[in-house]
Amino acid sequence: MAKYVSYEDSGVSIDANDVMVERIQSYVAGTFGPRVMAGKNAFAGMFRLDYDEKLFKRNYRNPVLVACTDGVGSKVQLAGAMKRFDSVGIDLVAMSVNDMLVQGAEPLFFLDYLAVNKLEPAFISELVKGVAAGCKLADCALIGGETAEMPDTYAKGDFDMAGFAVGIVERKKIVTGRAVRPGDVVLGLASSGLHSNGYTLVRNICFKQNKLKVDARPAEFGGARLGDVLLEPTRIYVRAVVKLLRQYKVKQVVHAMAHITGGGLVGNIPRVLPDRCNAVLKKSSWPVPKVFGFLQEKGPVKEAEMFRVFNMGVGYVLIVAEDFADSIMKKLAKYGEKVYKIGRITTGAGKVVLK
Amino acid sequence: MAKYVSYEDSGVSIDANDVMVERIQSYVAGTFGPRVMAGKNAFAGMFRLDYDEKLFKRNYRNPVLVACTDGVGSKVQLAGAMKRFDSVGIDLVAMSVNDMLVQGAEPLFFLDYLAVNKLEPAFISELVKGVAAGCKLADCALIGGETAEMPDTYAKGDFDMAGFAVGIVERKKIVTGRAVRPGDVVLGLASSGLHSNGYTLVRNICFKQNKLKVDARPAEFGGARLGDVLLEPTRIYVRAVVKLLRQYKVKQVVHAMAHITGGGLVGNIPRVLPDRCNAVLKKSSWPVPKVFGFLQEKGPVKEAEMFRVFNMGVGYVLIVAEDFADSIMKKLAKYGEKVYKIGRITTGAGKVVLK
Repeated sequence: MAKYVSYEDSGVSIDANDVMVERIQSYVAGTFGPRVMAGKNAFAGMFRLDYDEKLFKRNYRNPVLVACTDGVGSKVQLAGAMKRFDSVGIDLVAMSVNDMLVQGAEPLFFLDYLAVNKLEPAFISELVKGVAAGCKLADCALIGGETAEMPDTYAKGDFDMAGFAVGIVERKKIVTGRAVRPGDVVLGLASSGLHSNGYTLVRNICFKQNKLKVDARPAEFGGARLGDVLLEPTRIYVRAVVKLLRQYKVKQVVHAMAHITGGGLVGNIPRVLPDRCNAVLKKSSWPVPKVFGFLQEKGPVKEAEMFRVFNMGVGYVLIVAEDFADSIMKKLAKYGEKVYKIGRITTGAGKVVLK
Repeated sequence: MAKYVSYEDSGVSIDANDVMVERIQSYVAGTFGPRVMAGKNAFAGMFRLDYDEKLFKRNYRNPVLVACTDGVGSKVQLAGAMKRFDSVGIDLVAMSVNDMLVQGAEPLFFLDYLAVNKLEPAFISELVKGVAAGCKLADCALIGGETAEMPDTYAKGDFDMAGFAVGIVERKKIVTGRAVRPGDVVLGLASSGLHSNGYTLVRNICFKQNKLKVDARPAEFGGARLGDVLLEPTRIYVRAVVKLLRQYKVKQVVHAMAHITGGGLVGNIPRVLPDRCNAVLKKSSWPVPKVFGFLQEKGPVKEAEMFRVFNMGVGYVLIVAEDFADSIMKKLAKYGEKVYKIGRITTGAGKVVLK
């Protein structure tokens, strides 16, 4: 008699999926606010707009939905090598919510897509724990997700993750960069480290060129493990920036913002700069974390390439009206950010000039 | 002198990314309606809610956002083997929009995440062309996306994709399944084939167990290539179902709906069935496409397993009030769907009974 072939034989386990769904439920529910309409086994996540409630009407006359998607690049490979899965979820949320923040939006909800070689409930629940932690830091609800088991695409131990965030902004308050003008001050918010870009290069330098181990403890890092330094989660700027923007209900004093991801300061600031302006940045005006010097030396990597790939210590940029720069700096510092005056807007051609 | 290491040497090409962005622009723009606020190089996609306009106010008093994410599973592997990349994007959109449709939502916008071994503009633009085609079929705008080049996670030629859809539904009109009662009629809408589930099993049966080639032309398929039959894109039910729901502004005659994905009819219908009801389905009441018989025989696969993994010819289910069943069937047929009366709701325990 012929042997029957089943889905499970082919490498996909439907029952493991059920176990996992149960496990992650508590992490997910911890991110819910009163606007989430939860449904067990639901086909889709639901989020009320409070359209008929006073709070919404006071804040929004003409709301615009803002949406982003991103992954964390090959930082997932590093997490795999470290077998530390509870922090890349924070990176995943950070990449999308920091992006929408640039337009002045406040995050409402988030969904994640996880693709793995094998559904191991303990591993998946660690990943989701991180995503939920990120959502809490960004004040958004984790209202949906998908976990795909794809043994033929992902090698054993390999995985990937993609995140999707939806936020909202009042139409008149969208921050576009159009108001940027010569004399404006460029403020930089400190990054927590590498954030989530350039990891293919980082891994090449550390593990291929220099054959370091993830648990090496280079003298530069004062006893910390290399892998932990590299895996430091991306800073989420949502709370501080949303709070700041709410302080200026009428005046538009924040003229542009940029999330410093792949492309670095030189690649991302021009995305919000008018063609007639340059941003002149003074490299000595903020401290560059040790991890960047370490990578530059170990490569070696040319300085220009470093600035084209990495954030170099500045994870988020605000271009603000000169007269308000000091008070904005004070506010951001009070909200917990390390903030530096890193440059000025001049007449120019839509470029970043490093001095 | 030491050789400098660059990002490009490490396998990631920033310039190829720029070329690609240019190419896909036209496909993406083709999905835009007047509510999309497009911005070149924008950090996030923006979509106006028309909150202050008459059309919106007439349709929505208390809107709820509905969001879904999904991939297409290992159907991407099959597309890779076929080197046919312009249709899996349709599957990607279908998986998410058919899910949100279950709750009565109409899709507003979509975002995609593509992860590849190498950014080849021609290949990526084919993928995005498919996503844009799917968005047009679902009447939603493709307002954002991310393409990640991850040479260490994805083998040469391998890729993965995740989709994310946001829609809207008036709170009172959310279809929940709570109204389902004995006597209700179960309607099935024909699938276009395998849709996007069970491909790890499909590939195991066809290519491992039976060592067939993707360009084989089995007698069962009347001259069609096996790979093309397996790659047939998932049907998108949005237009027909949204149009149907709009016909019943006051009466709630559609009591529940289900998108038949992994788990099949037996796994998905219970997700919207009250605990006190069963759905009794008559297997002979709809035609099962040849591809399912082919796989069942070639496996061989037990019939129960077939029904647990595949849609078996029914891609979407509506549970409707008995008195309206015939007129709903007529309407859905008029809107282009093949529709079958496949069963009845009885008192029971929240299960599907196949007869």
